[in-house]
Amino acid sequence: MAFFQNNFWGEKNAGFDVLYHNMKHGQLATKELAEFVRESAAIEETYSKSMSKLAKMASNGSPLGTFAPMWDVFRVSSDKLALCHLELMRKMNDLIRDINKYGDEQVKIHRKAELKSKKAAESFALCIEKYNRVGGEFEQKMSESAQKFQEIEEAHLRQMKQLIKGYSHSIEDTHVQVGQVHEEFKQNVENIGIDNLIQKFAEQKGTGRERPGTGKERPALVGFEEYMTALAPEGGKKSRAKAFRIPGLGKRDKEPDSTDSVVTEAL
Amino acid sequence: MAFFQNNFWGEKNAGFDVLYHNMKHGQLATKELAEFVRESAAIEETYSKSMSKLAKMASNGSPLGTFAPMWDVFRVSSDKLALCHLELMRKMNDLIRDINKYGDEQVKIHRKAELKSKKAAESFALCIEKYNRVGGEFEQKMSESAQKFQEIEEAHLRQMKQLIKGYSHSIEDTHVQVGQVHEEFKQNVENIGIDNLIQKFAEQKGTGRERPGTGKERPALVGFEEYMTALAPEGGKKSRAKAFRIPGLGKRDKEPDSTDSVVTEAL
Repeated sequence: MAFFQNNFWGEKNAGFDVLYHNMKHGQLATKELAEFVRESAAIEETYSKSMSKLAKMASNGSPLGTFAPMWDVFRVSSDKLALCHLELMRKMNDLIRDINKYGDEQVKIHRKAELKSKKAAESFALCIEKYNRVGGEFEQKMSESAQKFQEIEEAHLRQMKQLIKGYSHSIEDTHVQVGQVHEEFKQNVENIGIDNLIQKFAEQKGTGRERPGTGKERPALVGFEEYMTALAPEGGKKSRAKAFRIPGLGKRDKEPDSTDSVVTEAL
Repeated sequence: MAFFQNNFWGEKNAGFDVLYHNMKHGQLATKELAEFVRESAAIEETYSKSMSKLAKMASNGSPLGTFAPMWDVFRVSSDKLALCHLELMRKMNDLIRDINKYGDEQVKIHRKAELKSKKAAESFALCIEKYNRVGGEFEQKMSESAQKFQEIEEAHLRQMKQLIKGYSHSIEDTHVQVGQVHEEFKQNVENIGIDNLIQKFAEQKGTGRERPGTGKERPALVGFEEYMTALAPEGGKKSRAKAFRIPGLGKRDKEPDSTDSVVTEAL
């Protein structure tokens, strides 16, 4: 549609001025878009760094207790999120380069357009004297200018929309990746059953296997062994003098029921 | 599975100690989870604020030129993203309250457990003298303790997983919302056709409608009107003395071809 040709008439070159300045505003819009994307990239970078910090926090989670393996799930997930957002920042930085490149091209296009404008003005100056043709000439020239301005504007907006699509796609890709990380996190949390955690802890921190009465080999009841050792002549009161006592090794010369302290804290 | 009952035998009360301390580590895990979620909430708050800033940046986008309406799309989208992340922050803060509440309950549970442990120890002390029964007594008490510890641990892990699920769900909800905002943004950008922008600009900034030759009413060619006015005796050279000249009103006493400047910049 010939929107510009239909709407920018009026007082002398007022319409021309508006269209000319609109073209120039295109350069501002390009710059502003680059600034907007730059700010977005900065936000993503900050977010990415925060996620790395969160991953570090998770990796510093206490390695003690049954809950410990869960921190690994948090750490992996946070690290991946940090990567997703870092990748988005990178894509946005690439986009800023594209926008700036377009901005440079745009300046060139406008410069050419200005040259043509000057030429048109010169050739038109020659016709000024032919007074009776001025009206028609003006209409024709104004129409041509409006059409050209509209073409430039359409190309500009097409380019800007293309750049915005790039922005949108990058965000969309990241959003999909982030969704996968969340899904993974959820799955990982579900997969780590409570039994798994209990078992893992029992295997890693277990103090002795084979509970008596399970049919498996009966564990050595160290208390009794110590008692037996204590009864032997070489045991004596040797360990008593030691300042540092290994737990459970401090009551050798006591009553034979050396297990008395074993359950003092039992529930 | 009786993981604790099978794996925490060994030297005297070493197993008991490990299980007792593991229970206590549960309190640390709860605190650490609260801290982790607090940090997450802080990250979301920062992100939300950054998005609000970005929305402000978009609302400060130049209102001139055909691209101007696009900034509204950016602004709305950024504002909505800010809200999504603020909402996530709020949900995380609610979750922190739940975690802390559980932390308080946990302390109480552990205290009761400790009381029982003392009682068990006292009643067991009475049996110490019956030497021949100590082995069996120890086994039984240790089994009971291990079982109780495992129950406490299972309940604790169940609670922790429930809290993590809350965290996960909040993030998931926000992710879905954010996805909707992105989709909306994409749609809005697509919906704002280049023709729409051109038309909108033409309508808002147009200097005159009805291009000559479109069959509609011919616009007033102000240049000519001025010329006619200039020819009339009351026109004179009045405006010449004015310091401020309204564009297109400064050449009244010139040649009749007052449109000479109209296209000097025409393409």
